[in-house]
Amino acid sequence: MKLLRVGTAGAERPALLDRNGTLRDLSGLVSDIDGELLADASALDRVRQAADTPDVLPPLDAEGLRIGPPVARIGKIVCIGLNYHDHAAETGAATPGEPILFLKSPDTVVGPEDTVLVPRGSRKTDWEVELAVVIGRTARYLGSAEEALGHVAGYATAHDVSEREFQLERGGTWDKGKNCETFNPLGPWLVTADEVPDPQALELKLWVNGELKQNGTSADQIFPVGEVVRYLSHFMTLYPGDVINTGTPAGVAMGRPEPKPYLRAGDVVEVEVVGLGRQRQALKDA
Amino acid sequence: MKLLRVGTAGAERPALLDRNGTLRDLSGLVSDIDGELLADASALDRVRQAADTPDVLPPLDAEGLRIGPPVARIGKIVCIGLNYHDHAAETGAATPGEPILFLKSPDTVVGPEDTVLVPRGSRKTDWEVELAVVIGRTARYLGSAEEALGHVAGYATAHDVSEREFQLERGGTWDKGKNCETFNPLGPWLVTADEVPDPQALELKLWVNGELKQNGTSADQIFPVGEVVRYLSHFMTLYPGDVINTGTPAGVAMGRPEPKPYLRAGDVVEVEVVGLGRQRQALKDA
Repeated sequence: MKLLRVGTAGAERPALLDRNGTLRDLSGLVSDIDGELLADASALDRVRQAADTPDVLPPLDAEGLRIGPPVARIGKIVCIGLNYHDHAAETGAATPGEPILFLKSPDTVVGPEDTVLVPRGSRKTDWEVELAVVIGRTARYLGSAEEALGHVAGYATAHDVSEREFQLERGGTWDKGKNCETFNPLGPWLVTADEVPDPQALELKLWVNGELKQNGTSADQIFPVGEVVRYLSHFMTLYPGDVINTGTPAGVAMGRPEPKPYLRAGDVVEVEVVGLGRQRQALKDA
Repeated sequence: MKLLRVGTAGAERPALLDRNGTLRDLSGLVSDIDGELLADASALDRVRQAADTPDVLPPLDAEGLRIGPPVARIGKIVCIGLNYHDHAAETGAATPGEPILFLKSPDTVVGPEDTVLVPRGSRKTDWEVELAVVIGRTARYLGSAEEALGHVAGYATAHDVSEREFQLERGGTWDKGKNCETFNPLGPWLVTADEVPDPQALELKLWVNGELKQNGTSADQIFPVGEVVRYLSHFMTLYPGDVINTGTPAGVAMGRPEPKPYLRAGDVVEVEVVGLGRQRQALKDA
């Protein structure tokens, strides 16, 4: 299923994009799309049955309707750094021996077509298309990558916007360049795991002002999704509704020759994990 | 005022410790102690008026009552690393030129007397008494430390439990050793800012099995509270109900000679910022 949330920011309603591409209202069936729903197999079954007989769900007019992030009340966002062979190479970093992790606050999340703000004083705002994993079952000290995949509710397109000077040149950890407001567009859809048979066979693409900048595949991930979830579960407990940004392929501004083409107000970024939906953000000054 | 939350985990009710040390029920007056309340001046005024005439608030029997974390629905926890001259010295690190920041997930927060779990495989679980700052007004690109102090709702005792091998020897950022479950005991009280005239004059103390291990003062902070809030507001937006752990003074296990006395199941840690209340945690294996 393709689950989404539509409406004004903070007042989104749950919805479904059915097999015919019709947007349908889920608010008569579930209160929201969040960790509580994703952990509730019987509620998800009711949604699935309705999705299979879509005429029971009222259609919504998509025209002019804002799309919000597809998951409400995200508990935490864990990000994996340097998780693609080609991206590690372009940054000049060694291939990590175990996953590098950092955190983004859930308050950085915006909808897939919302404005992204270039922070005041920023000179190095950069883009990163990522495959986001949404957790559906509490994950704690898991034994195998295969078991870990059973804790994944679904997948989404994510944009891990990053300020490289804040991240790398201002002292301390990467978190400093990853948590500016609007820095985590998410969506449009949460595509449930049953419709993503192989999370290691997804194409990731990103364009700036219409020009293709990133064109990778999750097959190039150093640590695949199941291993990432298994590994993280030994350092923290993952809860339903938590999100993992699993890293970006090559092609970011930081990896290019000088003068590096960092983002500025007026730029337009499009971000897509093929099958999970495309985002489009206009950049403005904060 | 000393605000707190009492009851079983996940079902705490708001309460007040009045000037005579009597615990009083606030649940008839406010639904919870969270960012929404802290941002609502008129609701806080009602609580303050009731606190001044405490007989209007029903007393609670404190005997056997669990104390939860004093703030519900924390949005994010930002932590400042190496923010005390003596602690930076004991770790062998240079004094930072600007604040080092990292993040803890709000799901690591437990009450001040809850069990702390030593992670599986941990050999270096360490203690850190900290002064926690709770935000009361949205803070974004603030101009001065003085202005920033006006965005602080209050203060609390925090224990920034840390696994040093995970934090420093497993690749990546400090977040890896800071986000294990139960790693952020908070409370007992949120002491409102009006009752903390100088946040740079607080004593911080921590005992392990009755032996005093940390004995510092917030006067030794490299970046004082107002400056920390001002600085952070240029890298992220701080919202009501966000928490800042402002760093730890000297005396952690990591700073001691070999064999370093890291925590193990069976140990008991007591943690106090004088005036903000004392915590006591028994350690168990995860």
